[in-house]
Amino acid sequence: MNKAPLILISNDDGIHAKGLKELTEVMRLFGEVLVIAPEVPMSGMSGAITVDKPLRAVKVEEEDGYTSYKCNGTPVDCVKLGFNQLTDRPPNFVVSGINHGANSSVSVVYSGTMGAAIEGCLHGVPSIGFSLCDYASDADFSKAKMIAARIFQSIFEQGLPLFTCLNVNIPKGNVNGVKLCRQTKGKWMEEFEKRTDPHSRDYFWLSGYFKNFEPEVEDTDLFALENQMASIVPINVDMTCFETLEQMKNWKF
Amino acid sequence: MNKAPLILISNDDGIHAKGLKELTEVMRLFGEVLVIAPEVPMSGMSGAITVDKPLRAVKVEEEDGYTSYKCNGTPVDCVKLGFNQLTDRPPNFVVSGINHGANSSVSVVYSGTMGAAIEGCLHGVPSIGFSLCDYASDADFSKAKMIAARIFQSIFEQGLPLFTCLNVNIPKGNVNGVKLCRQTKGKWMEEFEKRTDPHSRDYFWLSGYFKNFEPEVEDTDLFALENQMASIVPINVDMTCFETLEQMKNWKF
Repeated sequence: MNKAPLILISNDDGIHAKGLKELTEVMRLFGEVLVIAPEVPMSGMSGAITVDKPLRAVKVEEEDGYTSYKCNGTPVDCVKLGFNQLTDRPPNFVVSGINHGANSSVSVVYSGTMGAAIEGCLHGVPSIGFSLCDYASDADFSKAKMIAARIFQSIFEQGLPLFTCLNVNIPKGNVNGVKLCRQTKGKWMEEFEKRTDPHSRDYFWLSGYFKNFEPEVEDTDLFALENQMASIVPINVDMTCFETLEQMKNWKF
Repeated sequence: MNKAPLILISNDDGIHAKGLKELTEVMRLFGEVLVIAPEVPMSGMSGAITVDKPLRAVKVEEEDGYTSYKCNGTPVDCVKLGFNQLTDRPPNFVVSGINHGANSSVSVVYSGTMGAAIEGCLHGVPSIGFSLCDYASDADFSKAKMIAARIFQSIFEQGLPLFTCLNVNIPKGNVNGVKLCRQTKGKWMEEFEKRTDPHSRDYFWLSGYFKNFEPEVEDTDLFALENQMASIVPINVDMTCFETLEQMKNWKF
């Protein structure tokens, strides 16, 4: 019987992404690895699940302590399949990434990488989403791998509170340490570019820029990243706003 | 100049869903209505956005105080287009639904209906997702409409704290009032049905049942629904878990 912990890895850049291979390399130092990743890129898929078509998972690689599958579903589908079907024992950890591109601030809401990490902690195991602030498909993950190993080592030893996962973002270039942060308040602005096709019909490309509502505030993830530090934001899957709940107790409906 | 508030409506069941028409009827009592809904059903799409293909929005109906569009994107794409492109003034409210089927407890993480409401409050306006606990396409929305009107009236007058939206679920059948709640802790179990196709290849259908981890606890949304009350859960788009953040301050990384 294999006593090594089973680490489930997924991502949203898909089975062929460099960041997935790099994270797998790191995680094989800690235990048995089961990779289940989308067969095509699934960026921006958030916590989406596939309800209207059957899922398939095809084994890609298998060697001692390591198995990988590609799946036609979303990152969350991949994690669900990992817990329910593709292994005879439940995974002990879920890690997602390393994403090509940042998932800081409110991007946690849209990120498929974080969707997979959130799904992991809904299954009751310590889960982390890792992202590198570099969209390039051949990005240099060498520093990100060291940070991922360091943070995973800590969670491996100390665990995480139930129904909490970590959103880890790593700056491009130098990394001057690791910082615990909260999610930066901000929003995406002017989000579309409007064009007209050769048949005179309008279409829109998602685009725009992010506006930080609190650029000077030091305990946010964006502040850490702008100062070349890796950010760790603990994420709560209980989305209840207890402050508002208290306020609303006096309201009439 | 039109002084009536502009109410943006979307959903995840798509432009043809009965629940969308019923919600539109209610909202036209309160102001000018702009409907932008997916052209096909998008259940389970969570906060997904479309990054890899252009979006199109086609006008379906237009009359005094009411315009509707169908869009080839997700519920969140619909809301983003509504704020950025399809109107000359920013919407004052976003309402989503009325969903065919519950979005209580952790389903808030997967729901496209709630994805649209969360997107609305990321744009800084009071936003509500409404769901009826009845999946039937011809469900009876008469009581749900009254509840939606009652809750919207309250938010219309009192607003909502910034970056908070409401997840409203309405039971099927009798409704014995409205209750402020928190998100029930629980998880989906045995989530897939495995089958084999005529070519001997396995495939999986998402399935399973929900396990309530706190069935006797009275302040949860599922408890309210089981007692035939409509549940209101205030949802926080800042997903930072501040409790864990405090605990982790002593950790070594």
